[in-house]
Formats: sequence, structure tokens, C-alpha cells
Amino acid sequence: MSTHHFEPTHYHMTLGSHEPVLHIADGDTVITTTVDAFGKDARDQQVTERGNPQTGPFFVAGAEPGDVLAVHLDRLMPNRRIGYSATVVAPSVVDPEYVAELPKKEMVEWQVDTVQRTATLIKPDSRLGKLTVPLAPMLGCFGVAPARGQAISTATSGEHGGNMDYRGFVAGVTVYFPVFVPGALFFLGDGHAVQGDGEIVGTGIEISFDAQFTVHVLKNRTNRWPRGENEDDVFTVGNARPLDQALQHATTEMLRLLQDDYGLDSLSANLLIGQCVRYEVGNVFDPAYTMVCKLSKRLLEGLRR
Amino acid sequence: MSTHHFEPTHYHMTLGSHEPVLHIADGDTVITTTVDAFGKDARDQQVTERGNPQTGPFFVAGAEPGDVLAVHLDRLMPNRRIGYSATVVAPSVVDPEYVAELPKKEMVEWQVDTVQRTATLIKPDSRLGKLTVPLAPMLGCFGVAPARGQAISTATSGEHGGNMDYRGFVAGVTVYFPVFVPGALFFLGDGHAVQGDGEIVGTGIEISFDAQFTVHVLKNRTNRWPRGENEDDVFTVGNARPLDQALQHATTEMLRLLQDDYGLDSLSANLLIGQCVRYEVGNVFDPAYTMVCKLSKRLLEGLRR
Amino acid sequence: MSTHHFEPTHYHMTLGSHEPVLHIADGDTVITTTVDAFGKDARDQQVTERGNPQTGPFFVAGAEPGDVLAVHLDRLMPNRRIGYSATVVAPSVVDPEYVAELPKKEMVEWQVDTVQRTATLIKPDSRLGKLTVPLAPMLGCFGVAPARGQAISTATSGEHGGNMDYRGFVAGVTVYFPVFVPGALFFLGDGHAVQGDGEIVGTGIEISFDAQFTVHVLKNRTNRWPRGENEDDVFTVGNARPLDQALQHATTEMLRLLQDDYGLDSLSANLLIGQCVRYEVGNVFDPAYTMVCKLSKRLLEGLRR
Amino acid sequence: MSTHHFEPTHYHMTLGSHEPVLHIADGDTVITTTVDAFGKDARDQQVTERGNPQTGPFFVAGAEPGDVLAVHLDRLMPNRRIGYSATVVAPSVVDPEYVAELPKKEMVEWQVDTVQRTATLIKPDSRLGKLTVPLAPMLGCFGVAPARGQAISTATSGEHGGNMDYRGFVAGVTVYFPVFVPGALFFLGDGHAVQGDGEIVGTGIEISFDAQFTVHVLKNRTNRWPRGENEDDVFTVGNARPLDQALQHATTEMLRLLQDDYGLDSLSANLLIGQCVRYEVGNVFDPAYTMVCKLSKRLLEGLRR
Repeated sequence: MSTHHFEPTHYHMTLGSHEPVLHIADGDTVITTTVDAFGKDARDQQVTERGNPQTGPFFVAGAEPGDVLAVHLDRLMPNRRIGYSATVVAPSVVDPEYVAELPKKEMVEWQVDTVQRTATLIKPDSRLGKLTVPLAPMLGCFGVAPARGQAISTATSGEHGGNMDYRGFVAGVTVYFPVFVPGALFFLGDGHAVQGDGEIVGTGIEISFDAQFTVHVLKNRTNRWPRGENEDDVFTVGNARPLDQALQHATTEMLRLLQDDYGLDSLSANLLIGQCVRYEVGNVFDPAYTMVCKLSKRLLEGLRR
Repeated sequence: MSTHHFEPTHYHMTLGSHEPVLHIADGDTVITTTVDAFGKDARDQQVTERGNPQTGPFFVAGAEPGDVLAVHLDRLMPNRRIGYSATVVAPSVVDPEYVAELPKKEMVEWQVDTVQRTATLIKPDSRLGKLTVPLAPMLGCFGVAPARGQAISTATSGEHGGNMDYRGFVAGVTVYFPVFVPGALFFLGDGHAVQGDGEIVGTGIEISFDAQFTVHVLKNRTNRWPRGENEDDVFTVGNARPLDQALQHATTEMLRLLQDDYGLDSLSANLLIGQCVRYEVGNVFDPAYTMVCKLSKRLLEGLRR
Repeated sequence: MSTHHFEPTHYHMTLGSHEPVLHIADGDTVITTTVDAFGKDARDQQVTERGNPQTGPFFVAGAEPGDVLAVHLDRLMPNRRIGYSATVVAPSVVDPEYVAELPKKEMVEWQVDTVQRTATLIKPDSRLGKLTVPLAPMLGCFGVAPARGQAISTATSGEHGGNMDYRGFVAGVTVYFPVFVPGALFFLGDGHAVQGDGEIVGTGIEISFDAQFTVHVLKNRTNRWPRGENEDDVFTVGNARPLDQALQHATTEMLRLLQDDYGLDSLSANLLIGQCVRYEVGNVFDPAYTMVCKLSKRLLEGLRR
Repeated sequence: MSTHHFEPTHYHMTLGSHEPVLHIADGDTVITTTVDAFGKDARDQQVTERGNPQTGPFFVAGAEPGDVLAVHLDRLMPNRRIGYSATVVAPSVVDPEYVAELPKKEMVEWQVDTVQRTATLIKPDSRLGKLTVPLAPMLGCFGVAPARGQAISTATSGEHGGNMDYRGFVAGVTVYFPVFVPGALFFLGDGHAVQGDGEIVGTGIEISFDAQFTVHVLKNRTNRWPRGENEDDVFTVGNARPLDQALQHATTEMLRLLQDDYGLDSLSANLLIGQCVRYEVGNVFDPAYTMVCKLSKRLLEGLRR
């Protein structure tokens, strides 16, 4: 198991079967960087076009269609002090009658302090003053190459992952992607220092990242949608519009997960989530919305096959 | 400010302008009981028809259309040991292609222990054994009489409240309902010992309650949708289908709340929720779904007008 | 079979179990009038409040829950020359980003000529000049009292009918409503001289009507949603939000209709609509949207049981 | 202006920036063939994989991003006698509770007679006998390469066209696509001998086509979505899920069309469609649904700039 240091020199605006930038092995770790959603790097310099440019793809030896790529997010940390966010909620997240009352959009600046672990609003002046919120670095857009020669925009998401903008994709999480092409072709980008649920203004606090991740190939799995786990929970991710359909995907995948990974019969899986499920809203801004279906691992102790 | 003890003798299947069962004053407290969703009381006896029968309505002196009725949920406690739940998720919360794989519905029984504060699955036998979950009593259906002579089924919800099935409606919460008719006409029922997000099997652990609440009339407010607060958060509630529209209602109401109650200008309100909002899923089972938009009170310290 | 002349003296803003204004028998005909959506009568005088005031309810002897009420719309004709319409599409029917570009709402006036069978835009002046469109009188809101004591606003619709705003509800059509309460309790109102699909500005050309209808009771039927037929087609009506759910209701009801009324097996019913179905959009403005599922009667010749 | 005869030797499963198969000029006509959705050609032989394989792309000289490609469908005609269709409606177009009642899927065969202009069900035997329906050949999937390097699956649709499955795309229609890449890169495939609204069983009567089309480049236009016209109507096409959003796109594009092409002010455009618009349902089966917004050309006489 090797550790690779990879410095990107170009970026991708789609997740597709692009030329790999690096071949890595099952169990390998990659230390790399991502530019922000606007294409700006650690020096706040524009190095590529805007729209969630992706670092990668990384070809993972041995990953074949029908497998799962497990990606452990080892470390996600802003690598500059300035972050940018939008200010006005999308017209699609308020009542249509209220849209005309939304103020004019502008971008604001935040100072990100990775030592104090805070983000502080520094510009412009507002009633909120120097609003300070806890740093919570997360990846907005990452995933694998989709099937059948598709090249899917980094604006949206699907079974392959992509622009899910889920606040829960933080360091310490493992994400399980279905593999659609040989080598899986993993991409990552669009770091947020902080993000509200839904990414309702269309941005988190957008910032470039130092990122480290470790991959494993799990052979012959049946994931249809991304799955994940952190210390406390297992979860599944549905990406679609409307939000109702994203929720259907995530709930169905959770029922499958409980049967696949914990050997529950269908009735037990249904009964368990009926009283114990938690949902979290990923994004409600992008072309596909994201809903996360969670279950506490404590409930599953002793059940794993 | 008086405390009333009220024992219901009949129940309502709609929230409407029905004959009040009790007249109470601003600041008064009511101690009463609710039957479960199936019409069964503290002795597990069927005393009325099924479908979220409501205790009430309570006429609150001085409440007029254009006011807000603040209802503090003082105490919500199961008053029997047996609870019932469904077992199979609604076909509307899984992928349409997966519906045919859902198992056959049945009802299960839970033993509710208000001392240990647990609910334990006691029937039938399953892979889950004696699954035990923490007691978290909440009201599924409550609210006020709607406008214009409507009588709205306790199966659904709207601006008046109703069958929201939100896990956050626990003791200690204050809920703010718009008032549509003189006296507001407050109803309550449909207690759950425990409920998962979304009420995706169509029930929580359904049980009868001892309930205590205290009312206040706030004059001349502009709430369009129910609002609430607990120790940590303020929140707004949107009820509609699809979930996207429920989210629109809740988000719009939060923007109004921040401007009404905290004097934020529109841009500051947008900016604040952009990076700090939290959403919670109420129900995704009933004819109208429920989405809750939350904000930490800590963020609002020093801002209230 | 009698013909009744009924002149309304009050109107209802909900479809509910209100005191009947007239008892009629199976096979009877009623000649009556309706006011427009704003509560204005044949003399253009405001005689009741706005919001689709309903004439009725008519109690139909012998109609019981589980039956169907067949209502033949014998005649629907504007009874004054002035009609009113809104001008600007609802913010919910355009892209959220486009809402801010919508012009300011105003009401316009149309001259309705029942001899020439035209409606002509007379006020204000616009690029459209004296736009003249063919008269196509239809009922916007009509139906029966719903189940379980509900009183449902004339703003919306459901299994009981209500504010469906479907352009196809013209004279010559027979509509089949499920009966939920003894006597069915039939209501009608909200006449439009002309209406576009979707009622996307929130109004047709709103006008008062002379109306004549004839009722029949069909015993022991299984309709869940309104059904209808005209000379060419049979159709089913789904009312819900989003439009996708309205379409699901209408399609399901059509599959049931083909099995109930024409004795098709399920596979034949599916196969037939697969290549032959037509959909029409009722309203996409009201709280519940309306989708109509149609099939040419020619395809069904020789199949009726 | 030349006429090209082009016989495809390979097909594409995405609309993307693939190597052109032919360079053509503004005003040129192409006579070619398409295989059916299953990859079968005029001899009913499988020549490529299934999933709406596309003939093309055709590079149109002079077409640049910001232009519009006008494609006149000169001729669309089945070139074999056997057509295939599915039989059971998608679980997503019926009530979730009804899904379990749907019959088992199978494929059926139709005999297509281009002289009599009919399609006749020939296999299997059913209650419908030799159901015969009028031939109505249409293109299910066609369009141009999307922006930003995307390669979008032929299963779905978007601003670039794609798998819209709209019954109105017949010979005689002109379709106007926004151009996103140099040369526009036009693709076509997925012919249907007949199709019901919504393509609710997931197929029309799938068949290979002889196809002829003629292209024109319109410089510097502002189409966001496909537009079209036939002898009677102009129309706009929105592709998205849910159907409500597809309708929003189509309605917005119609308001733009009336202002762009007919010089109407915004209020006149709104007023006109308010009482005169017609909607048609394209597909409600594919990942993106399709809604068409139509207006009679007769209403626009004398208005064109």
C-alpha cells in the first residue's frame, strides 16, 4: 500500500472516462489538492474555468464494473484563508410568490482559520457583523466515471456520485461508489469550508483543499447508489429531482444495504427503519437534488453477517 | 391563569369550526388526554373511530384571525404500556420498481416503559429480537381550525397545522399557529411514543397520551405557517406535496421569521440561512408532506429586536 | 323524471355536508344559475364573496356511499356579456429564475357573444388588439360532498371533484363522481367562457352561467376518482400535486375503468393504453393540479361488457 | 444545397462531441436510416447494442454556439414490417399502491403496413384481438451535442433535445435546437411507428426508419430549449423531472418565443397564452420527462416582426 503525492495540472468539468492522471492500487493513499468551485487554487489564483473543476481521475487497479470503490476521506482541509459564498437563496427553494422579494445577489468573503477552526464573514458589512461559524470542511463534488460512455457535468449528480453537496461528506467518512468502468476513475473537487443543508444559496464557503484519501476495491457488490459510513451511522445517498425521488432512491438503497450487509430479512429491514430512520438533505440547488437516509450503527450491533 | 383538567368524551376527525369543548383564557394551562391514531384510549379500548381522532377544540379567549396562538407543549407522556406500529414502508417512499419487493404489511406491538423511557418490540418474533429504542414522545397531529369554513381531515396538514408527524414536536417545544377563526380552536391527538423521520411506515409507535399544554395569544402577527422553538433552535414548518414545495414553504417562512422577529434585512436573512440552515423531514407519508427549516438560536443571540 | 328550476339565494365556499337547497330524484334535471368566481351574477352584481362560490348542494335521492353520481352537463351558457380574466401566468408555471421578469398583474375585460360564440378582448389596449377567440363554456369547479365530515375549499380539488379547471368539462359531457355521503350533495359553479390548458393565469374568462344538468345514480360502483365521457372519448381525472401524482391517479383510474366497464384483463388494459392513451392538462394553478387520461371510444367498440 | 445519402455503420449511445460521420452545409438534406431502440435494423437484425442508438453526428458547417439549428423532418417512415412494444405501464405512472397489481411485462409484436398506414397487433393473443391503430411515425430521440464536453445518455433528454419521446415529432415538423458546439453535431434515432402520450409502457411501437431531414443555421438566437412548429402550431419543449418542472421550462420558453419572434411585450405574451395555451405530454417514462407548450399559429397571424 503506497502513498502517492499528486499535484494536478489540469481539471475536468465532467465525470467521464477521461485519461487517468494516476494509476493506484487497492489500499493506496493519495495526497493531493483541489481547486475551489470557481477554479481558484491555494493562492486564490484562477487556474482553470469555473464550475466544480475536478482533480483526477485516479485509476484504481482491479476495480471492475460490478465492484464497489470504497473511498476513505482521510483529510480535507482548506489550504488558503479566503473563502467565497453566494448570499441569496435560489428562487427554487422559496415560494414562487416570494421570488420577487429576494434581494439582489452578491458574493461575500469569509476568512477561514484552520487553527481556530472557524470561518468569519469579513465582507461586506451587514447586520450580521463578523458572523463566525465553526469550520466543517466537506467535499461537494466527487465520484466515479458513469456507465456507457457518459460524461456527466460536475453541476449535477447521479448513481456515480458527482455534485451531491452533502454536508456529511467530511474527513473520517468512507463512501462506497458503484464501479461502472474498469479502474473506477475517481474524481474529487468542490471543497466547502462550511455549508448549510441544501446548499440553498448555490454555494457553501467555497475554498481550495488539501485532500487525502485511501481507496479499497470491494468485489462483486450490488450497490446501486453511493453508500457511506462514519463513526456513528451508515447511510445511503439518492440523487434526483424532485426531492421525493431522491428520498425514494436513498430509502430503497437502505433497505438493500440492510439485507446485503446485515442479513436482515425484508420485513425486519422495513420495521427497523420505520421507527429509527433519519433523513438529511444534501443539496436542493443542483439539477439533481440529494437526500441521505441514515441509520445509527448502534441499532445494527450484533447483526452484521 | 388557570389550569383546566379536561377529560374528552368525543373526538373529531377534522380540524374545523366545531363546537368548543372548553373555553380557556390567554395563559391558561390544560391537562387532558388523547387517544391513539386508532381511537384507543389509556385502557387500550376502542372509544372512537380510527384516523387520528382529536381532543378539542379548545376556544382561546381573545384569539382573533391575524393573531398567533402560541402553544407550549408542557408534558406529553404515554399513559399505557402497549404501543402499535406498522412495519412496511409506504410504496411512495421507495423506487416504483422496488414496490413489488416490499413484504406483506402487518402490525407489531411495542412495550412502552415510561420509567426506563424505552420502547421494546415484543411481537412478533423477528431477526431484530427485542429491539429497544429510547422513548421520544411526540404529537403527530395538532393545530387550529382553518379559514373559510373548511373542515380539514386529520389525515393531512396545512397552514393550520394538522397531521404533520414531525419528530420534533416533543414536550418543551412552543408551537406558533396562525389564527384563522375567533378563539383559534385548538385540537390535539395522535401521540407517538417513538417515530422515525418521515413516518415512512405510516405510523410511529401509536399510543394514547396524558398531555398538558399552555396557550398564549400573540396579537397581530404575520405567520403564514406554523413556527416553533425549543431550547436550541427556532424553526418553521411547511406542509405540502411534493417535499420540494414543503421545503419552499418552510424556507420562505424562515426568511420572514428572521425579518419579523429579529429585524434582519432581507440580504442578511438570506446570507445567514445560506451557510447555517438545517432541514428536518417531518412526514413523507400523509397527503401533505412536512419539511422543517431550523436555525440555531445561538446564531441569533443579540439580534432579537 | 322532473325538471326543477332552482334560483340560488346563497352560495358555498366549501364542498361539504351542507344543508341541501333542493331534493331531486334519480333522472331529474335541474335548471339553475351560477355566479362567477368573484361572486358576481348575471347582472354583474356582487351577490356573495369571491372564491368560486357554489350553487347547491342538490340532494339526490337514493345516492349512497359506494354509488356513483352521473351528472350530464346538458347546457352551460354565459348569461351576461362581460367576462373577466387575469393576465399574468402564475409564478409556479415558469422557471423560478424567470419569475422576476413577469409583468405586473392586472385584470382584463372580455365581451362575450353567445350568438357569434366568441369572446373578444375589450380592455385594456394591447399589442393583441381586439383578440377574438371561440367561445368554449366550461365548468371550473363542481363535485360532491367529500367523506368523513370534510368541508373542502372551492380553491382545490380531490376525489370528490372540486376546482379541477379542466377545459373538457363542457356541455354534452357526463361526469361520474364517487358518492361519499347520502344524497351525494352535488355543487356547481365557477363558469369559464374560455380557458387555456392549465388555467395558468389563475382564471379563465370568468363569467356567470345559465346551467342545466341531469343526474343518475349508478349503484355499487368502484370509482375512486371522477370519470367522464363525451361523444368521442372516455376519460379519468386525477387531482393532486405534483402533476406527476395527478397523472398517476388518472392513469390508475383508467386501468380500473377498462377492467370494470369493458371487462379487459389487466394486461390488455395496459397494452391498450400503452400505445393509445392521451393526456390533457386540467389546471396547474390551484393547490391540487388536474391531469386527465383519455381513450378514444372507437378503440373500445365491441368490448363493453 | 446538396442532398446526401448516408448509410450508418456505427451508432452512439450518448449525444456528445463525437467524431462527425458527415459534414453538411446550411440548407443541405440528408437521407439516412435509423435502427430501432433495441439496435435492430431494417432486416430486423441486431447491428448494435440496445438503448436508442443514434445515427450521426452530422456536422453542420457554420453552426456555432449561440446559433440555432433548424431541422426539418422531411420524411420518417418505417422500413420494415415488424414493430415491437412493451405492454405494462411503468410503475412510476400509477399510484404506488397499485404497482403490485400490475401484470408481468412481456414484449408484443405489431405488423406495420406503410401502404394502409396501420399498425396491427399480431402477437400474443389477447382480449384486444388484432387491434389496429393508425400509423403515426415519429422520432423518439434526436438532438444536438450538449455543452461543456458532456456526453448525455440517449435514455434521457435536456436542453439539447435527446430522448423526448413526444408524439408530435412527425414528418413535416421543424425543430429548432440551441447550438452548443461548433457544427451543432446532430443525431437521430429511436423511431416509433405509433406512440401513446407519455410513452408510459416505456416504448412506442419500436421500429427502424428511413429518414430524411434538412438543416438550416439561424444565427444568434436565444433559444434555451427546443422549439418547433408544424402547419398549425408553434411549440416549445421542456425536459426535466418532475413534470411540473418540464412544464415550467416549456412555458417560460413560450413566453420568450412570443417576445423574440413575434415582438409581443411581456404582458401581451402572458395574456395570450393565459386563455389560449395548449399543453401536450411528451414522455413520463425516461429520467427526464417532456412537456410541450403549444399555441395556434392562427392566433399569431399579423404579429410576426
